[in-house]
Amino acid sequence: MINVAILGFGVVGAGVAEVLSMNEDKISRHMGEEVKVKYILDIRDFPGSPFESLVTHDADQVFGDPDVSVIVETIGGARIAYEYTKRALSAGKCVVTSNKELVATHGVELMQIAKDNGCRYLFEAAVGGGIPIIRPLHRCLAGNKIMRIAGIVNGTTNYILTNMRTSGLSYEEVLKQAQEKGYAEQDPTADVEGIDAQRKLSILSSIALEGDYVSPDEIHTDGISGITLNDINFATKINCSIKLLAVFSHMDDKKPSAYVAPHFVARKSQLAPVEGVFNAILVKGNAVGTTMYYGRGAGKLPTASAVVGDILEAALPAERNAYTSDWHFTDASRVTADYDDVVTNIVVRAKAGSVENLVDKFSAYTVKSVWDGNDCSAVIVFGIAHKDIDPLVKSVEGSWMHYME
Amino acid sequence: MINVAILGFGVVGAGVAEVLSMNEDKISRHMGEEVKVKYILDIRDFPGSPFESLVTHDADQVFGDPDVSVIVETIGGARIAYEYTKRALSAGKCVVTSNKELVATHGVELMQIAKDNGCRYLFEAAVGGGIPIIRPLHRCLAGNKIMRIAGIVNGTTNYILTNMRTSGLSYEEVLKQAQEKGYAEQDPTADVEGIDAQRKLSILSSIALEGDYVSPDEIHTDGISGITLNDINFATKINCSIKLLAVFSHMDDKKPSAYVAPHFVARKSQLAPVEGVFNAILVKGNAVGTTMYYGRGAGKLPTASAVVGDILEAALPAERNAYTSDWHFTDASRVTADYDDVVTNIVVRAKAGSVENLVDKFSAYTVKSVWDGNDCSAVIVFGIAHKDIDPLVKSVEGSWMHYME
Repeated sequence: MINVAILGFGVVGAGVAEVLSMNEDKISRHMGEEVKVKYILDIRDFPGSPFESLVTHDADQVFGDPDVSVIVETIGGARIAYEYTKRALSAGKCVVTSNKELVATHGVELMQIAKDNGCRYLFEAAVGGGIPIIRPLHRCLAGNKIMRIAGIVNGTTNYILTNMRTSGLSYEEVLKQAQEKGYAEQDPTADVEGIDAQRKLSILSSIALEGDYVSPDEIHTDGISGITLNDINFATKINCSIKLLAVFSHMDDKKPSAYVAPHFVARKSQLAPVEGVFNAILVKGNAVGTTMYYGRGAGKLPTASAVVGDILEAALPAERNAYTSDWHFTDASRVTADYDDVVTNIVVRAKAGSVENLVDKFSAYTVKSVWDGNDCSAVIVFGIAHKDIDPLVKSVEGSWMHYME
Repeated sequence: MINVAILGFGVVGAGVAEVLSMNEDKISRHMGEEVKVKYILDIRDFPGSPFESLVTHDADQVFGDPDVSVIVETIGGARIAYEYTKRALSAGKCVVTSNKELVATHGVELMQIAKDNGCRYLFEAAVGGGIPIIRPLHRCLAGNKIMRIAGIVNGTTNYILTNMRTSGLSYEEVLKQAQEKGYAEQDPTADVEGIDAQRKLSILSSIALEGDYVSPDEIHTDGISGITLNDINFATKINCSIKLLAVFSHMDDKKPSAYVAPHFVARKSQLAPVEGVFNAILVKGNAVGTTMYYGRGAGKLPTASAVVGDILEAALPAERNAYTSDWHFTDASRVTADYDDVVTNIVVRAKAGSVENLVDKFSAYTVKSVWDGNDCSAVIVFGIAHKDIDPLVKSVEGSWMHYME
């Protein structure tokens, strides 16, 4: 049994408890033992929460319990979170966090304390929310000199920029909508002025430079509060989107650079289609070339996903600290479903003018007319089992292929 | 000093030696000690190669040397590679490989041998070439139930499909071109019939299922040899691209499924713009939602990048097996370049009809006219230092913003 304590039961803290609970079986299987939340430390009570009984206001109880091996810090900020993180690491307990401000500002000290006390300070969730980026950058690409990072790392600003374009509303109007929907804070400064992106770039740059700490203070940062609808419309005219990018660059023998600023991004760039609250990070290494990581950069469960990944890493005994699982044969003759029974989506083509016939023949499924030309007719059929495809397609004298949206 | 032996000095094996050599300083810094190739085991000699002196034909010398802690298996196939991998793991030496055939067919046994002998069998390079996917899937997303994987995991077929569309040539003609360019083997069966993708999907599915081994034999596989130019052109008409996808699905309480087949992929999908030899893998977890991993799925240095990442993971002493580096302050007041000195690309806008003036004013740089409308004129300026921007932009009474391609 691995016992976890969560400090701060806000959105992310609650998400961590929820993910550990909903994926309990899967996680036990991954670890070979149960992972349980033993305490939730918060100044508030949470009457009615399924985790109510775990809530404590007594920090001494949490830090003094030798059964607690992993501490999740989801308090945020760099004050109480800082004191608690130091206390936990000093006691030899691993700390896992989504707190980019604390990592970016006090990471040097906290990682030293962790090292001195034989434990770890892990923060996959601090950049890119649920997107794996810290581990890929630091471990998978360890054999590369990192030459460039260019990331959309703040979902709030990307949401605002995307919606200005699609709605035709001004920055102020879209910001107000974002605040109403909970995509922007009531005080949006840290997001819209690029401070959140600056902290994340501090972390990525420091990893890219193998530990040479890049302070947020040295990162030039322009936000998006000056972006007008006129800018957005112009970007469209020149086949670009405006994106707030966090950019690290370390080319040839030049000194590395790091800055945050709005960019026109050409539509052909991998970053251009990244819309709304999604994040994406391009990383270029001198061996691997360009790689990209894409996903939800914020939100309760995505961020909790990254925190839980770190909890499991922190809890893994050293002798099992491999990243491959122990494969084994099961009693079943096969693990996966028979191909015939697998449900899929397909495009069915038949002779021109036959759309109505196609829609009729596949009426047991969701079906959508997609082409009605002189050459042929076609529909998309959703949710059909492989074994049912051939007889039906034969009956319309057609052909078919898989379809994916 | 960490001593590595490379078995099989083909494209990937040579790439591993090259990356360890060209990024020697960076890697030493990452590990805190040097990582050196001590032996290259091959039946051939390599006169003139910078690594000629390391070549040996004596397997006993390699396996019997207690200084060698990590073995790189880049022989390929499942015969000699299988025997050597068993021998190395049985001797307690970690084995790192890019050999998807061996992992997919003998992974169960080999991982058990590794476990029994307290060492590791690592294969990040076996799927997606240089793209980090094994570690993100198994470690970062460990808290998720994996619901879906959809990947373009074979560069040869994606190259062929892409070039049929762009060139208008037939499958046979494009395959021939691909063979001439070295993107397809002389016997292309494993690629074009989906066998390579099938092996990779076996590996990904087995990880997604926490070690329930999905044999390649149970994966229904259709290749691309039946795809015609007519199919390709039709895909364009319905706003799709044809992609060979490896698909794993595990929804709700259904049995998991895994198959390889060509798909029409809608242009709005994240996978649609993945062209040529690039790979991309979508992974959907029940907490994180959809994530994507993109990059070069094959090639000498990209694949070597993944192998080297695993070498460093395998060599890391347990007490340092964290994925965060030890940050520290440097003597310099800052690590990164001053923002003013950083060179960038920008879009400069000024009054309508001023394109010629803009091109003239920025003639010291590479400059490109990009808009010449009734509302304004604009150029892209490449390679300009931040400190030079404002004076020049002021001189044309214009405004500017960053530009990224």
